[in-house]
Amino acid sequence: MKLIIGNKNYSSWSLRGWLAAKQSGLNFEELIVHIAGEDWEAKKAQEGEFQPSNGKVPVLWDGDVVVWDSLAIMDYLADKVGRDRFWPKADEARGMARAMVAEMHSSYLSLRRNCPMNIRAKVQVELSDETKSDIVRILGLWAEARARFGKGGPFLFGTFSAADIFYAPIVSRFITYGINVPGFAQAYMQAVWEHDWMQQWIEAARSEEWTISQFEIGDAQERGA
Amino acid sequence: MKLIIGNKNYSSWSLRGWLAAKQSGLNFEELIVHIAGEDWEAKKAQEGEFQPSNGKVPVLWDGDVVVWDSLAIMDYLADKVGRDRFWPKADEARGMARAMVAEMHSSYLSLRRNCPMNIRAKVQVELSDETKSDIVRILGLWAEARARFGKGGPFLFGTFSAADIFYAPIVSRFITYGINVPGFAQAYMQAVWEHDWMQQWIEAARSEEWTISQFEIGDAQERGA
Repeated sequence: MKLIIGNKNYSSWSLRGWLAAKQSGLNFEELIVHIAGEDWEAKKAQEGEFQPSNGKVPVLWDGDVVVWDSLAIMDYLADKVGRDRFWPKADEARGMARAMVAEMHSSYLSLRRNCPMNIRAKVQVELSDETKSDIVRILGLWAEARARFGKGGPFLFGTFSAADIFYAPIVSRFITYGINVPGFAQAYMQAVWEHDWMQQWIEAARSEEWTISQFEIGDAQERGA
Repeated sequence: MKLIIGNKNYSSWSLRGWLAAKQSGLNFEELIVHIAGEDWEAKKAQEGEFQPSNGKVPVLWDGDVVVWDSLAIMDYLADKVGRDRFWPKADEARGMARAMVAEMHSSYLSLRRNCPMNIRAKVQVELSDETKSDIVRILGLWAEARARFGKGGPFLFGTFSAADIFYAPIVSRFITYGINVPGFAQAYMQAVWEHDWMQQWIEAARSEEWTISQFEIGDAQERGA
């Protein structure tokens, strides 16, 4: 299996795809492409070839199977190794987890534009009202998941799952932009940040040499954006 | 089971949730709320109660389980009745179907704003370059799916599946806005349009009395938007 991802410091959707690949327990190779540079599939497009991912990361290749988009990658892997590795078993918890992940996948455009992921930086920006609403909504979802389904561990639904994979880049943003959060959210964020796979990703992000301007980050070619 | 949806003429994400509920084969009740009116969950929010769906449709209630977002609803139902009812069996086809559905879920913002769903109308609008790119991309995906996986029937992956559920509102938009499409796409669109469930939905949309201005449609409170 091969996973094509963008810069580790900046590409939040790549982080989701990569955490999903880790969660699957399967071996995979990483291929890093520079997401704010020239379209890495432009050459194929010029030749008229079908571009599965439309030039966006992440992309998973599993033999002849190509899956683009972080959410599709996660559920494709869940199909392969068993749903329980990614999703809570109980219907009520799984229903909420699926909804939270889908909401992350399609929403919070203001937060994503206002506060792009930038793992190794501390940045001060003015938050728009829409961004503040996004933050309130996310904290509300985290609170509800932790209170109702988080008894078995420090993560949203207890043990590390699909929901944490999808909200991990939000944790990074809240740290980078110094967002004030209540104590329960601080504890949750710490658990995510200290997770082994996050630590591996963060270390790689810190040692990357590519630097993208704040402006370019918003244009980064990620899928799910 | 109860499915909360918005106006049938305008709410594309409701159509997806409703088709998913139909595809599950389970009995469900419909509850229609007026999406461009006052926030139907505003009262709950004022009382400080957690709003599962943040006031957006569609929402599925299955006993105590609440699932919002059309994609989460579809996969929750697939969990319940078996994945094969929604997704192709073969890995290659399912990988592509999952990716196409996820792309629909998070992308084509320009097409969605430029050409909001309006089932009973024929509308002429100027298409932006971004909208044209969205259309080209969608036609490329349809062509690829039909050519590689569409042998068993007239739909994207042969028989009616998750991918058709997600692209059905695009079929409606292409008809409403008179988008020129190649022959293979015309044939596909006709198959979707003539599908029994689509015909039921279209008939209901035509007999609705609510009318929303073009401006309001873009602000409609749907999840997945």
